[in-house]
Amino acid sequence: MPVAQLTILGVGLLGGSVGLAAKARGVALRVRGVGRDERNLARAVSSGAIDSFSTDVTEAVADADIVVICTPVDRIADDVLAVAKAAPPHCLITDVGSTKGNILAALAGKLSATGPTFVPAHPLAGSEKRGSANASADLFRDRLVITTPTADTDGEATAAVEYFWRQLGARVLRMTPEDHDHALAFTSHLPHAVASALAAVTPTGWLNLTAGGFRDSTRIAAGDPDLWAAIFEANGPAVLGAVDRFLLRIQDFRRIVAAGDHAGLIHWLAEGKRVRDALGS
Amino acid sequence: MPVAQLTILGVGLLGGSVGLAAKARGVALRVRGVGRDERNLARAVSSGAIDSFSTDVTEAVADADIVVICTPVDRIADDVLAVAKAAPPHCLITDVGSTKGNILAALAGKLSATGPTFVPAHPLAGSEKRGSANASADLFRDRLVITTPTADTDGEATAAVEYFWRQLGARVLRMTPEDHDHALAFTSHLPHAVASALAAVTPTGWLNLTAGGFRDSTRIAAGDPDLWAAIFEANGPAVLGAVDRFLLRIQDFRRIVAAGDHAGLIHWLAEGKRVRDALGS
Repeated sequence: MPVAQLTILGVGLLGGSVGLAAKARGVALRVRGVGRDERNLARAVSSGAIDSFSTDVTEAVADADIVVICTPVDRIADDVLAVAKAAPPHCLITDVGSTKGNILAALAGKLSATGPTFVPAHPLAGSEKRGSANASADLFRDRLVITTPTADTDGEATAAVEYFWRQLGARVLRMTPEDHDHALAFTSHLPHAVASALAAVTPTGWLNLTAGGFRDSTRIAAGDPDLWAAIFEANGPAVLGAVDRFLLRIQDFRRIVAAGDHAGLIHWLAEGKRVRDALGS
Repeated sequence: MPVAQLTILGVGLLGGSVGLAAKARGVALRVRGVGRDERNLARAVSSGAIDSFSTDVTEAVADADIVVICTPVDRIADDVLAVAKAAPPHCLITDVGSTKGNILAALAGKLSATGPTFVPAHPLAGSEKRGSANASADLFRDRLVITTPTADTDGEATAAVEYFWRQLGARVLRMTPEDHDHALAFTSHLPHAVASALAAVTPTGWLNLTAGGFRDSTRIAAGDPDLWAAIFEANGPAVLGAVDRFLLRIQDFRRIVAAGDHAGLIHWLAEGKRVRDALGS
């Protein structure tokens, strides 16, 4: 049974993909988009990601059954509060934020138990590309969506939001917000910082001397600085922990190479290969 | 005009691709492979990468017009000497080594001016995959091959070897061995160490929490530890210089995040994005 109205706040790569997937899979009868940039919203209507749009949150969620917040992580908590105030009590709210602890901390004690329920989520899908023009109905297919309900989150609402993400093609894994932020610091946030550093230390005059290895290992450095700054700030302590662990590992490498420790170098490289091989190609 | 005989030492991913490309493009009438593992060599005959093989270098290069050495960087200099002793005087010798200074240093004063000429080369092509089974006739197409002749290298031989690589589909750029090793420390060797470190610090239990970013940025960590240990050892000082530059950059990041310096973080990320955007997707 499709819901009557899905509203998407922030119609970029992720928001546009939520709309395309929801329509392609018959998850919602009507999809409304909310944003600031009317030209972007009009393009999203043309591409079929949304059916209609508004620049006014209150108006756009008044009849919503489910709202997906796809704004940057430093704006999600405020957007949840704005939606919760204007949406009907049965409405479900979820998000796509790459960090969870900061959002839940900002919301603590501020949501009414009788109003709309917020079930935090993070789809492990995305791209260094931005905008609804790069959106895809298949962005979530076979990808993992992590939900991070707390002890206060209504169980039925959590199940319903998880079902919604599965309808978009995703697999769902439930974690605590703390575990999510700790793990993602290593599996997503640290790689972004490292890719950016690798790119930044390379003189542009040498870019013609790169091959596939450099291209792959720096690809995510093209991501949007504003979005990523917000992520690093929202998950500061866990990111710093991952950075420290990584720095020790690189300093090990430095020591081993400087010492000419052949067996140590093979061993060091084999440890990284073992983990990467476990991931598969 | 094809050469009569091309001999390839080391018939793996690169050596097999030299053979396939040479045959597909009519560069050589006969392609011989040399190696230690007869089963691997027999497979390379079946796949068409070579026409025949030998486990004896002396025998395999006796009639060679051009020899391509595709062995690990710590064996190339010895292989050049072995080939130069057994090949006819007009024979050209080139290689695919990822480092150049160590090879030229090991050869200094050891090659006869009247014997075969060695023209060092490094095709910026490869893969974390190994073996002639992954070889491709198109591996070098539109890829860069860097040649590093010295003041002692015969000019005609250099031009002939560069023509050979162009016949395999590559573009050729001539550099000094020192410039090559300095630049490749940043564009290839550092990224490998960094990818390995990123993979190694990630608990395997969190690999299901990775997405495309982690996958791309760690892909090369699956490379062969023996081959890469030899590369890091051969280019130690330049690699350590690149590592130090990179460490400073990551330490900058750490300081900026710890200080909550929003503008500094945006700026730090924008510098990496600028370089990566200059490379293109």
